[in-house]
Amino acid sequence: MPGAAQILRGPGDDAAVVRARPVCAVSVDTMVDGTHFRLRAGEASAAEVGHRALASALSDLAAMGAQSGEAYLALGLPEGLGEDQALALVRSASALAAATGTAIAGGDVVAAAALTVSVTVVGWADDESELVGRDGALVGDLVGVTGTLGAPGAALAVREGRATGAGSIERLLQRVRAPVPRLREGRALAGAGVHAMIDVSDGIATDAAHLGRASAALLRVELARLPLAGGVAEVCAELGLPACELAATGGEDYELCFCASAENRSRVEAAVDSAGGVGVTWIGEVVAGAPGVSLLGERGNEVELGGFEHRW
Amino acid sequence: MPGAAQILRGPGDDAAVVRARPVCAVSVDTMVDGTHFRLRAGEASAAEVGHRALASALSDLAAMGAQSGEAYLALGLPEGLGEDQALALVRSASALAAATGTAIAGGDVVAAAALTVSVTVVGWADDESELVGRDGALVGDLVGVTGTLGAPGAALAVREGRATGAGSIERLLQRVRAPVPRLREGRALAGAGVHAMIDVSDGIATDAAHLGRASAALLRVELARLPLAGGVAEVCAELGLPACELAATGGEDYELCFCASAENRSRVEAAVDSAGGVGVTWIGEVVAGAPGVSLLGERGNEVELGGFEHRW
Repeated sequence: MPGAAQILRGPGDDAAVVRARPVCAVSVDTMVDGTHFRLRAGEASAAEVGHRALASALSDLAAMGAQSGEAYLALGLPEGLGEDQALALVRSASALAAATGTAIAGGDVVAAAALTVSVTVVGWADDESELVGRDGALVGDLVGVTGTLGAPGAALAVREGRATGAGSIERLLQRVRAPVPRLREGRALAGAGVHAMIDVSDGIATDAAHLGRASAALLRVELARLPLAGGVAEVCAELGLPACELAATGGEDYELCFCASAENRSRVEAAVDSAGGVGVTWIGEVVAGAPGVSLLGERGNEVELGGFEHRW
Repeated sequence: MPGAAQILRGPGDDAAVVRARPVCAVSVDTMVDGTHFRLRAGEASAAEVGHRALASALSDLAAMGAQSGEAYLALGLPEGLGEDQALALVRSASALAAATGTAIAGGDVVAAAALTVSVTVVGWADDESELVGRDGALVGDLVGVTGTLGAPGAALAVREGRATGAGSIERLLQRVRAPVPRLREGRALAGAGVHAMIDVSDGIATDAAHLGRASAALLRVELARLPLAGGVAEVCAELGLPACELAATGGEDYELCFCASAENRSRVEAAVDSAGGVGVTWIGEVVAGAPGVSLLGERGNEVELGGFEHRW
C-alpha cells in the first residue's frame, strides 16, 4: 500500500501507531444514508459512498496544503446491507487511498440503523508555515479556484430526473460518483504562497463567505467568471436557473478556492499546472468591507442566490 | 483547556493542526444508540454517552502506553434529540477530556436516524519503544490486571431490573456511567517494561485471548484470582452465575490486562501504585500452548464461560 512505510502498527492492536512528522493536520467527515447520499433509495452505490466519504475528508487536508498520511474508517452498517456492499465500499475507499498515497490504518465497524461512514484523515507537514488556513486573505488579493464547478449539482439533477444532461450525462455523473480531492494542487498552492484556502464542498458562494469571515475581509466574486464544468450551463437552462447557479451553490465540487497576491499570479498558475493540469480561474478579488462574500452579476450588481435547494 | 498548548489550529478551519511528537497512536471508537447504549430507551443519559464514548477510545491509547493528545467527536444526532442533550453529551466528553489532558480539537455533526458518537483519539510518544502492543507476551510471563472487574456488567443487570445490587447499587452504576480510562497506569506499565498490554473492553476472557493470539502464546488465567469490584459477587449470586462470570465476560471494564516477566513483578506494582492507586492483581501466567486463553477453575480444571449474554 503506498504510504504504508510510516505505519509502525496497523489494524489489529488497540491503536494504530504511525511515524509522525512535526505538524499534524486532522479532519473528520461523516456521511449518513438519506442525508449525504441515497443508497437505500438506489441513487448511490456502496462503492460511490466509500469513495466520496474518503474524498470529502481528504479534500479538507488538500485545503490546508497538507500531505495526506493515514485514514481511519468508522462504518455503521445497517442490517440490510450485504457483505458484498460493505466490501465494495471499503475497496473503493482503499483504491482512492492508494491513488492518493494514503494508508488506511484502522477504523471501527458497528451496527447502525442507516449506513454511516465517518472518516478521519491525518495529514502531515514538516513545519506549520507549510500549511494554509482560511484566515490569511488580504485586501488586494485575487480570488482563484481550481478546476471547474457545478458538475455534482448538475449530475444530481440528472440522476433525479429533473434534467436530461443531454450529451454530458456520463461525464457529469462521474464527477459526483468519484470526485478527486485536490491534494497535489493544495500542496502546490501552499508552496506557491497563497494566503488563505478552503475547499468548495458547500458551493463557492458559501465557502468563499467562510473564507471571507475567517479573514475579516470581503471577497467580491464575479459570477460570470465561475469556471463551469461541461454540461452544467445546459442543465441550469433545463432547470430554469441562471447558468452560474449550480457552480455557485450546488456544492460537492471539492475544488480549492484561495486568495493570493496579484504579483503572485503566474507563480500560482504554474504551481497548479505542474501539479496536475486542472488549471486556475481567477474569479474575483479581496476588498475592505463587511466580512463575507459579495456575488456580482454581469453589470457589477450584487446578486442573491441560493433560493434553489440542492438535496444531497 | 489542558493539553491545548499543542493545538496550532482548532475547530473552524478545514482541518485541525497540531504540533506532533515523533510517534502517533490513533484509535477510533463508535457507539450507536440501541447497540452500545440505550438512550432512547431511557437507560442511559446523554452525559453518560459522551463520557463513555470518549473513555472507550482513550482506553485504547491507555493500552498502548501512549500519552493522550487530542480527540475528535463525530456526532450523528437524531431529530428527537434536544439541543440540551447534545450539549450535555459534549460537556461530559469535554470534562473527561480536561481530566485526562486531552484537547477536543475538532469533529463533525450530522443528522442521523439514531444517536451515533464516533470518537477519534490521537496519542503521542517520543519513541516507538515507549509503546506496548498486544504481541509481546513471553512464555513464563505473569499476567496482571489493574483495578477491579465486573462492575459494569453488574450495573447493567441492576439497571435492567434483573438484580437488585443490594447496597452497592450507586457504586456499581457509577462505574458504568463514568468509567475511567487508565491512561496514567498504561504509561506507567509501559515505562515499567511490560511485554504486552490490552484494555479489558469485552471481558478479560475475550481480551486475554486476543492478547494470547497476537503473542502466539497461551494465557492461563485463574478465575478465582480475578479482582471483583464490590457488589459484583452478590449480583452474580442473584443472577445464579458463578462469582467470576461478570468479571470474566461482562466487558466495559476499561482496566488494563498485561504480561510482564516475573522478576519485574515489584517494579510493575510500584509503577501502577505511583500512577494512581488502583492496584495490580496477578491472575495467571503465560505458557506454551495453543495461542489464546485458558480459564482455570478452583481445582485447576479448564472452565467454559460466556453462555450468559451481556446486552449493551
